[in-house]
Amino acid sequence: MIVALTGGTGGAKLVEGLAAVVDPSQLLIICNTGDDCVFHGLHVSPDIDTITYTLAGLSDTEKGWGIKGDTFAAMEHLGRLGNDIWFNLGDRDLATHITRTRLFREERKLSEITEQIRRALGVTATILPMSDDRIETRVQTAAGEISFQEFFVKERWAPDVRAVRFVGAEQSRPAPGVLEAIRRAEAIIVCPSNPITSIGPILAVPGIRAALEQIEAPVVGVSPIIGAAAISGPAHKLLRTAGWQASALGVARCYRGFLDNFMIAAEDESIAAEIQSLGIETRCANIRMTSLADKRRLATEVLAWATK
Amino acid sequence: MIVALTGGTGGAKLVEGLAAVVDPSQLLIICNTGDDCVFHGLHVSPDIDTITYTLAGLSDTEKGWGIKGDTFAAMEHLGRLGNDIWFNLGDRDLATHITRTRLFREERKLSEITEQIRRALGVTATILPMSDDRIETRVQTAAGEISFQEFFVKERWAPDVRAVRFVGAEQSRPAPGVLEAIRRAEAIIVCPSNPITSIGPILAVPGIRAALEQIEAPVVGVSPIIGAAAISGPAHKLLRTAGWQASALGVARCYRGFLDNFMIAAEDESIAAEIQSLGIETRCANIRMTSLADKRRLATEVLAWATK
Repeated sequence: MIVALTGGTGGAKLVEGLAAVVDPSQLLIICNTGDDCVFHGLHVSPDIDTITYTLAGLSDTEKGWGIKGDTFAAMEHLGRLGNDIWFNLGDRDLATHITRTRLFREERKLSEITEQIRRALGVTATILPMSDDRIETRVQTAAGEISFQEFFVKERWAPDVRAVRFVGAEQSRPAPGVLEAIRRAEAIIVCPSNPITSIGPILAVPGIRAALEQIEAPVVGVSPIIGAAAISGPAHKLLRTAGWQASALGVARCYRGFLDNFMIAAEDESIAAEIQSLGIETRCANIRMTSLADKRRLATEVLAWATK
Repeated sequence: MIVALTGGTGGAKLVEGLAAVVDPSQLLIICNTGDDCVFHGLHVSPDIDTITYTLAGLSDTEKGWGIKGDTFAAMEHLGRLGNDIWFNLGDRDLATHITRTRLFREERKLSEITEQIRRALGVTATILPMSDDRIETRVQTAAGEISFQEFFVKERWAPDVRAVRFVGAEQSRPAPGVLEAIRRAEAIIVCPSNPITSIGPILAVPGIRAALEQIEAPVVGVSPIIGAAAISGPAHKLLRTAGWQASALGVARCYRGFLDNFMIAAEDESIAAEIQSLGIETRCANIRMTSLADKRRLATEVLAWATK
C-alpha cells in the first residue's frame, strides 16, 4: 500500500498523479481535517472533499476546490435570505455537506462518512481523515483568533499571523486504520501541502508522527515551496510564523525525524546540500504541476524513488 | 386585518389573489404545518414555503411548489451519494431549508424563522404557522402509516386511506399571534385547500376552531371541490375516508359551526340550497383559478362578500 499524507489544493495535484500511476486499490490517503468548518449548519471537510472529488474525477482543478461545472444557485439564495456567504459552496458540493451532516446526526463517524461518500462516487482508493475527533486549526492574528477558513478564504491570508494552534489535537486519536496504514505502508508520500496547516494538524494527532518516525518504509516528501514562496497559498508565511525558514529547507526541518527523501525544485539546487546534511536524501526536479502530465510524471518519479 | 387559513397549492392561488387586491400589510396568513417533513436532515415546511414564495413573487405556479426557474443540481448529487430523492427540492429552495434547519438548531421557533425568511424575501404580508409545536399528519394505508408527503408525493395519493391523524395536535398550542389575529380579523378567508389535510390540521390545534366559532367577523370559505372531485389533489378521496361526502356539501359540513359564507362552483348550483340549510350562506361563482386575473377576480369577490 502507498500511503499519502495531504491537505487540499497542492496535495491534491500529487494525489491525482498518484491515482493515475498506482493501482488505486493500493492507494490510501490520510487527509487533514483541521480546516473543517460548519457553514449554515452544514459540516464541510474541505480537504477530504477536494481529495474525494479529485479521485472521483469531479474536481474543479482550475479553482482548486469544489466540483467541476458546479452551479451556485443555493448560495445566491442563502445570501438573499440574509446568510453570510463569504465561503462559497456549489450546489452539487452542498449535497455532500448535507449528506455528511445528516450522517453525523445519525452518530456516524467522519471516517465512516468519508468511506460512504467516496464509495458512492466510485473512488477506489481509500480516504481516511487523520482523526474522527474534532480538531480545529485556529489562526491568531492581531484582530483575534479566527478559523483557518476565515484566515484563508475570508481574509485571503492577508493578516499577520502570530501563532497557529490545533484545538482538540492533544486529546485526539488517529482515525481507525491510520496508524495501521502507516505501519504497513510500502512507502509514505508527504504531498506538497502546507507544512503548518495541512500536514501540521496530521502530525499533531498523537501517535502519527511517532509512527512515521518508527517505520522502515521510506517517507518521501515533495516541497510545497520554491525559492521563498509557496507554489500556492500561505505556506511560506506560516512557516515564518512558526519560526522556520520560508524555504524547502524550512520544510525539511519541519519534517526532520521522519522524512527520508525530499523532492525539491530545480531552482532550489543551491540548498540541496544543506537539506542533505539533515540526513534527508534530496533530489531536484520540476515540482510544478500544471497539467495532468506534470502530475503523472512527478508521481512516477516520487514512487520510483520511494519504492526503488 | 384580513386573515386567511391555507395549505399549499390550491390555497396559494387565492392567497396570491388576496395579496394582489388587499394592502399586504393588512393580510395575515395562517399556514398548515402538518405536512412538514425532514428530508436529508433538513426541515421542510412545504405549505409555509409555497405561501412565502407566492407572496415573494418567486413561486413556480406551473408546478405548484418550489421556486420558479429553480435548478436541481444538489438533488441530482444527493441521489448520486445514495440518498433517496423521491421528494424533489430545488437548489434555491434548499437554501430555505438549510436556513430554517440552522435556525432550529439555534433554538428559534418556527414562527420566528418564518418571519425572518418572509422579511428577507421582501414579503409584507404576515405569515404564521398554525403552531410552533410539531404536528405531523399521518396517513393510515393498508401498507401501514406514512407521512402526508409519502402519501401525496411518493405514492401519488394512490393508496386507499383508512384514516388520517395529526400526531402532536392535542398537546399543541397555536403559534403566537394566531388566536389574536382570528379574534381581531375584519374577515377570515378559508382558502380552497384540502379540508382534511390542509385546513384540518389547523382546526386540530386546540383553541383555533373555538376562536373561529366565537368571532363576530365573517368566515368565508371557497370550495376546493367541484362536483365530486378536488380541483387538484386528493381532497375528495380524504373527505370520503373521514366520512364526509366528496362534494362542496361535504366540505361545508366539515366547516359547520364556524363557516358563515361559502363560495362554491357554478356547476354545483344544485347543492347550494342544501348547504344554505346548514346555516351557511352560499354563492356560486367561477372558482377555478388558472390565470392571475382569475385569482384577483375571485379574491375580489370573496373580499367583497366578506366585508360588505
